[in-house]
Amino acid sequence: MAALTDSFVARLCEWVRIPSIGVDPRHHADVHESAGWLRDRLREDGWPEVEVWDHGPALPAVFACWPAEDPRAPTVLVYGHHDVQPVDPVERWDHPPFEPVISGDELLGRGASDDKGQVAMHLLGLKAHLAATGRSAPAVTLKLFVEGEEESGSPHLRKLLEDHEDQLSCDLVVFTDTALHERDAPTVNTGQRGVLGAEVTFYGGTDDVHSGRAGGAIPNPATALAKLVAALHDDDHRVRLEGFYDDVREPTAQEREDYASLPFDEERWLANNGGGARATQGEPGYTTLERIWVRPTAEVNGISGGYTGPGFKTIIPASATAKISFRLVPDQHPDKVAVQLREFVREHTPPGIRSEVGLRGEGVPPYAIRPDDPANEAVVEAMSLAFDEPVRFARAGGSGPAALLQALAGVPLVYLGATLPDDRVHAPNERVVVPLLLKGAEAAAHLWRILAQADIAKRLTR
Amino acid sequence: MAALTDSFVARLCEWVRIPSIGVDPRHHADVHESAGWLRDRLREDGWPEVEVWDHGPALPAVFACWPAEDPRAPTVLVYGHHDVQPVDPVERWDHPPFEPVISGDELLGRGASDDKGQVAMHLLGLKAHLAATGRSAPAVTLKLFVEGEEESGSPHLRKLLEDHEDQLSCDLVVFTDTALHERDAPTVNTGQRGVLGAEVTFYGGTDDVHSGRAGGAIPNPATALAKLVAALHDDDHRVRLEGFYDDVREPTAQEREDYASLPFDEERWLANNGGGARATQGEPGYTTLERIWVRPTAEVNGISGGYTGPGFKTIIPASATAKISFRLVPDQHPDKVAVQLREFVREHTPPGIRSEVGLRGEGVPPYAIRPDDPANEAVVEAMSLAFDEPVRFARAGGSGPAALLQALAGVPLVYLGATLPDDRVHAPNERVVVPLLLKGAEAAAHLWRILAQADIAKRLTR
Repeated sequence: MAALTDSFVARLCEWVRIPSIGVDPRHHADVHESAGWLRDRLREDGWPEVEVWDHGPALPAVFACWPAEDPRAPTVLVYGHHDVQPVDPVERWDHPPFEPVISGDELLGRGASDDKGQVAMHLLGLKAHLAATGRSAPAVTLKLFVEGEEESGSPHLRKLLEDHEDQLSCDLVVFTDTALHERDAPTVNTGQRGVLGAEVTFYGGTDDVHSGRAGGAIPNPATALAKLVAALHDDDHRVRLEGFYDDVREPTAQEREDYASLPFDEERWLANNGGGARATQGEPGYTTLERIWVRPTAEVNGISGGYTGPGFKTIIPASATAKISFRLVPDQHPDKVAVQLREFVREHTPPGIRSEVGLRGEGVPPYAIRPDDPANEAVVEAMSLAFDEPVRFARAGGSGPAALLQALAGVPLVYLGATLPDDRVHAPNERVVVPLLLKGAEAAAHLWRILAQADIAKRLTR
Repeated sequence: MAALTDSFVARLCEWVRIPSIGVDPRHHADVHESAGWLRDRLREDGWPEVEVWDHGPALPAVFACWPAEDPRAPTVLVYGHHDVQPVDPVERWDHPPFEPVISGDELLGRGASDDKGQVAMHLLGLKAHLAATGRSAPAVTLKLFVEGEEESGSPHLRKLLEDHEDQLSCDLVVFTDTALHERDAPTVNTGQRGVLGAEVTFYGGTDDVHSGRAGGAIPNPATALAKLVAALHDDDHRVRLEGFYDDVREPTAQEREDYASLPFDEERWLANNGGGARATQGEPGYTTLERIWVRPTAEVNGISGGYTGPGFKTIIPASATAKISFRLVPDQHPDKVAVQLREFVREHTPPGIRSEVGLRGEGVPPYAIRPDDPANEAVVEAMSLAFDEPVRFARAGGSGPAALLQALAGVPLVYLGATLPDDRVHAPNERVVVPLLLKGAEAAAHLWRILAQADIAKRLTR
């Protein structure tokens, strides 16, 4: 196993050296190189079927399949991504982001945690699975799908999944792009919030107007927009779109109990996630973890209008714009929230103002698996074995393509992740804790074995 | 008079050719040239005392004095400015802005109306006065003060006035930088609103925060700021700073009657001043003209925070800023409103947010002269004679250094102006209506005569 570990770290370092920043066209060649690198490693490892899907405009994705010997064994599709976030502000990195450094049990570099580390973890997991069971093929049919556009919002994922529907068919999706709650509190993630981004613009006239000549006598689009934004939440920080909470699924008692039992240091959380915010704030009756995991939100991501440069310009702005995003939880749907938002904007557009609502694509639906789903119970068992202690439930506040994958595959989706929330993903000095990845690999090795057991296999494949 | 008119237009064209854009350092040499040009014309006209005040950092101002023969005659200080607004967007001018064009009875070019035309009007007015009365010196001691920084907000005016206190001493100030209500509705302006500019910033943490990881659980500075802006007005568009209306002086019944009797085409006003705004809006119980002339306001001039570029970035902004300006009416004072604003911001800063209030200098106090002030009655008489019809009262919604001049001189200040609100000052295709300037010159000629009459002179100089 020590040899496996050494080659695992060496490999991951090699991969991190490839600056596969998908959102930056100057790095698209690197995204191709990254896909090629992964393809070669999979072939090296003996995966019988390995392909790079490289049909523009999508950045290349890697697909691999290793059939089980038993044709009745379930098929599991593992999802991850090999594109990475940009590195700005690069001057705040202690080491160059694409020159990985080992420090204690950490590996530092862009993508080490998100998501190359976790994809590499699966390659190691399969080796460990084969070694432990003495098999020449996995106990389940394993499919690996590693996309190259996750950090860009997976704009071509739906098409890619549709184009390769047959190849991707499976009985279960394992989504590998979420974290443990804490190093000493291993958890199984059971869901992610969805997101709908919208841009609301209020127009007065065609030009800015001198505030001396007309101030006090015509509507001010910035003031009107501020009133709309102010009306978006009630005094309890609840979102005031009509019907917004109708479809919100409450977490189970077990989930709430688990969340409450997790270690949570508010000050440290604020320092890590609040950008130095001085206080938490949110819906009464819910803890901070519940507010970010199982409650929907509306947040202003940006607001602008009129003169915003240095000094002053006494104008009434011609227009003002707010970028607002809604985080959604099961069973909300972006389409329905979009309708609610349009209605809210209509109601809050005063006379003399024209409003426009632009949406960011179709939005990302939320997803959660029931904790007692047999597939999820298999993950809990595998994780408990690997971490040698009972694992608890957690959620993720962010969004990803889980719901899309689940809906298109038409099968359950579970989460397997072994990184940490303070891995500084999307930020300078990203790192991953190597021993956690090793445990994650062990969990995967257990999971394939557990899923092949007759009773769960039957339930998955029926 | 025809010869006087011809040379008047030729002179004004010459002056407009000098691009004295004071706010643009690349044009500071032109501001100097403009001051020199005016100095030379005043000497040409026989003003015995002419100076250019050119002590940096103030841009040059021109001062001239022509003493009356009778040492007991009142002293009148005429104020104007020779700097002009920038010309952007230059592509929307039908003619180059500094190549003046005569079209019908209009003269087009930057500064033709604001304020070179009105200063030139006074030079002509004095000539007419001397010609009509057969005198070799004006009936009152005339002082002319033409500054070069009005369009920059007169940042060094207080110092200039203090440095030249003796030279500027007078019994009355005539402020020449306001307009008639309409071509067919000559009016005497009796006041201008003041202004206080402020920048309110709300800070959350030091960095933007991922809205998935923390959304719903920490305060959003943009949302908090929107709530503050929304709270700035009640449903009747009244400003909600505590005590804001305490010092507001109501217009007289005569003034309100005059304002109501003035022609006012709302649609045309919106087209000219609303930048295409679709409706008027404001405090109930006041007309549009009253709302912009005699009522104070709070307007958001600009708002910004978070991500405002193309596309989306799902963050909670680290900070958000609103530039807000208050137009003030007598007897409000910027200092007092600044205190009220700071208190309002303090009250509307939620837990977890830090606020900062920055002010634009000391602000500009409002000013109004009582319609029945003897000096104002003299202006009304002079204007009625020149326009050959009774003139009514009006106000200006914008702000200027009138209150500063009045306060430092310690004497009444009256307004004499003959331009129009739709002269497109500060905008492309600025123009002035020449026959109105000629009437304004005639009014000035009458005014010097009227002010020298024993009874009013005694009241002014006592």
